[in-house]
Amino acid sequence: MPSDYRKERRVEFSETDLAGIIHYSSYFQFMEETEHEFLRSLGLSVQLREDDTTYGFPRLSTRCEYSRPLQFEDVVDVELRVARLGRSSITYQFLFTSEGEEVARGEVSVACVVRDSEGVMKSSPIPSSLASQLTAHAGEPLTFGPPSSRKR
Amino acid sequence: MPSDYRKERRVEFSETDLAGIIHYSSYFQFMEETEHEFLRSLGLSVQLREDDTTYGFPRLSTRCEYSRPLQFEDVVDVELRVARLGRSSITYQFLFTSEGEEVARGEVSVACVVRDSEGVMKSSPIPSSLASQLTAHAGEPLTFGPPSSRKR
Amino acid sequence: MPSDYRKERRVEFSETDLAGIIHYSSYFQFMEETEHEFLRSLGLSVQLREDDTTYGFPRLSTRCEYSRPLQFEDVVDVELRVARLGRSSITYQFLFTSEGEEVARGEVSVACVVRDSEGVMKSSPIPSSLASQLTAHAGEPLTFGPPSSRKR
Amino acid sequence: MPSDYRKERRVEFSETDLAGIIHYSSYFQFMEETEHEFLRSLGLSVQLREDDTTYGFPRLSTRCEYSRPLQFEDVVDVELRVARLGRSSITYQFLFTSEGEEVARGEVSVACVVRDSEGVMKSSPIPSSLASQLTAHAGEPLTFGPPSSRKR
Repeated sequence: MPSDYRKERRVEFSETDLAGIIHYSSYFQFMEETEHEFLRSLGLSVQLREDDTTYGFPRLSTRCEYSRPLQFEDVVDVELRVARLGRSSITYQFLFTSEGEEVARGEVSVACVVRDSEGVMKSSPIPSSLASQLTAHAGEPLTFGPPSSRKR
Repeated sequence: MPSDYRKERRVEFSETDLAGIIHYSSYFQFMEETEHEFLRSLGLSVQLREDDTTYGFPRLSTRCEYSRPLQFEDVVDVELRVARLGRSSITYQFLFTSEGEEVARGEVSVACVVRDSEGVMKSSPIPSSLASQLTAHAGEPLTFGPPSSRKR
Repeated sequence: MPSDYRKERRVEFSETDLAGIIHYSSYFQFMEETEHEFLRSLGLSVQLREDDTTYGFPRLSTRCEYSRPLQFEDVVDVELRVARLGRSSITYQFLFTSEGEEVARGEVSVACVVRDSEGVMKSSPIPSSLASQLTAHAGEPLTFGPPSSRKR
Repeated sequence: MPSDYRKERRVEFSETDLAGIIHYSSYFQFMEETEHEFLRSLGLSVQLREDDTTYGFPRLSTRCEYSRPLQFEDVVDVELRVARLGRSSITYQFLFTSEGEEVARGEVSVACVVRDSEGVMKSSPIPSSLASQLTAHAGEPLTFGPPSSRKR
């Protein structure tokens, strides 16, 4: 049974801010780095070339909820799962933990596109080589919600 | 009647990526810059000092939905509204337009905290000087949703 | 007589680090933003198109010397001058001041290149439309040196 | 005989720009990450606490010279050496190679400081625990120079 894809990442100095903790935008770098490392682990790339076609994956939406702050040099464990797989879109979710405790959860939805001869992006079915591998990494979706409904 | 707070911002070279368009994480810098400029326009700061207390506003959650890509040197108009004002939290929303057309919409919820003598953050009511001014910038909340339910 | 090109820039929250001051790499964003704004002020762009040729300006070298730290929300004045103008390279220098006092000085040397039909970059003379305008912004070069020789 | 400290680092998507190659400022992140990882390998941190004193290492100057561009997903090998060790300053140098070929070289000089009771930074001798270990990593200084004098 396939497990989630996991990546360890240390919080770098430049990712902190004057509040002494990690900047909230850094999680979006962590998500993207994990997504791309995941694709490489499948023998693929986010710049995907198949049968003379180059696929791209522009972002449709993203979100992140923060539970507790990370400090400089903390090691965060990022766990990726495929939460939804559409014909031409993918939703990845990410659980961030540090020393076994959740620090944040995030989500990124991407479209699958190809560029026509003028370079204009248009929606495309996900190439089958990728789709089949993503299915194997499908996981139980995480829940997100407005601050009022979150149990924190 | 108070209008939304607006800031113009040009897409810088370092904010693009090899896809030739703005990187999706740049919107989180835009949101924060607009929030902080808004607070300065009220004579305040995100590092808020009142009656010997220093308030901070760590992020609880954030999200962004993308409609169309921005290019290098595009000028984006960022419009901030206060979508929800709690006793100790604030939700800002942002509408990004370029040449009159929506390019993205985003949201940031922040907690109001003070640090105790050990430096530990704890929830605090929003200081009244800020709360009263935020009320004047309350706006109709934007809607967000999964890609499948968005009308685009 | 032409003066240096000047740009004002405020230090943003995300540009600080846990030391409570601006991160040293932020100056390289400031230099690039000032260079690109300068080119726009000439009616040009760092992505320069002239007579069906697209010119690019990859960086050859850069340096920065720091005199005193900038804080969040400080306003820095960036002054650009053209320190050296070669046949196919340009050296820009930047003096950073805040409240009239030098905080840093920096330098960026760029090559002028075109891409051949395979996309490979090769050195090119600076297009004349740009070269003539750069000459008008030539300024006395700043001095740089190892920490031991700097007068600070 | 001690060898240079080495770190491998992959070029991430967000570190590229619309020219399709790595942004020139990314090297300053690479240098800092390598410096901090090097200090951790010595059992130390850039936030160094010894005998109730906290030392900091603000940057005095930095430079980088670029030989050839890195692409997305390239792996770069960063090699750190201690090029100069003063009483209260350190100069680190960095050789960047990819597939055995130099792509860039860089340098960062830092001051050793402590903060007084008002939080003002003042120069301090490098604590002996660090100085002795840095000596063991001293290496032949790299040469830098204006583009005209570089042999490339």
